[in-house]
Amino acid sequence: MSTSPESAEPARIREAVAADWPAVWPFLHEIVAAGETYTYPRDLGEETARAMWMLSAPSRTVVAVDPGTGVVLGTAKMNPNHMGGASHIASASFMVDPAHAGRGVGRALGEYVLAWARAEGYRAMQFNAVVESNTRAVALWKSLGFEIVATLPEGFLHPTLGYVGLHIMYQRL
Amino acid sequence: MSTSPESAEPARIREAVAADWPAVWPFLHEIVAAGETYTYPRDLGEETARAMWMLSAPSRTVVAVDPGTGVVLGTAKMNPNHMGGASHIASASFMVDPAHAGRGVGRALGEYVLAWARAEGYRAMQFNAVVESNTRAVALWKSLGFEIVATLPEGFLHPTLGYVGLHIMYQRL
Repeated sequence: MSTSPESAEPARIREAVAADWPAVWPFLHEIVAAGETYTYPRDLGEETARAMWMLSAPSRTVVAVDPGTGVVLGTAKMNPNHMGGASHIASASFMVDPAHAGRGVGRALGEYVLAWARAEGYRAMQFNAVVESNTRAVALWKSLGFEIVATLPEGFLHPTLGYVGLHIMYQRL
Repeated sequence: MSTSPESAEPARIREAVAADWPAVWPFLHEIVAAGETYTYPRDLGEETARAMWMLSAPSRTVVAVDPGTGVVLGTAKMNPNHMGGASHIASASFMVDPAHAGRGVGRALGEYVLAWARAEGYRAMQFNAVVESNTRAVALWKSLGFEIVATLPEGFLHPTLGYVGLHIMYQRL
């Protein structure tokens, strides 16, 4: 993947390291505190967030960085969704800095985690909680092959919209 | 609730305490090691199992005991299924000693956790992973008001049946 700032690549994706956290936390915190898209506690503290987000093997956390400047644009974590007899189903979570939205970072991260899951031998990927009103994310996941397999009615209390549905999205790999 | 051994009540349900664990672990271990109904690692060790099963507030773990003898017949744990904006959705898990199957212990535990969830103000209960071939459990949860909202195709690798579906079951409270 090119590292030229003129590259058409929206982002370069690499393993997250501990030194990335100070760049991740501000936008992760902004997204979680807004409480519109993630089923995380809105008052999530930094140390808890770090433990939840910065995973170790066999799970993984990556950052998407600007190919020219190295600025962190977004991050994803990927992990088994279930254990035991369902451990062949993966999951993943994504945070894109709102300041860098709309330039394809989420799509690049989504493609990356699907490739990871296939390479690791997972047979499916399941997202457990996609907020119905997060229409941009829903459309992105659909475009990457996910289907809405269920919508939990009034599954999510949105801070301004009230109760909205919570999608479970799934795709076989 | 009567404590007479002649009672029609299949079980008395009470808070689990640390001293119950030695009675719970043998049948919990048997069920998990069989690997037919639960998405737990089949080689789950006792200490990990204890930490996963014996929950503290705001979650809860109960045991169902024989009203006459006090013998532990089964156990259930109940907890939030999601956090943040979806923290109004509860979940629960159940283990009934196979030696005491068929006498209504699972139903009594199911009714108990639904009453708990309503009393705690939850608006729904979601089971994340009900193995399709566990038809007795599926029928029980349906009879208690749950619906299959999705079936993940080949979501569970059964030790003798191969890949079977994994149901997500849900009910509004």
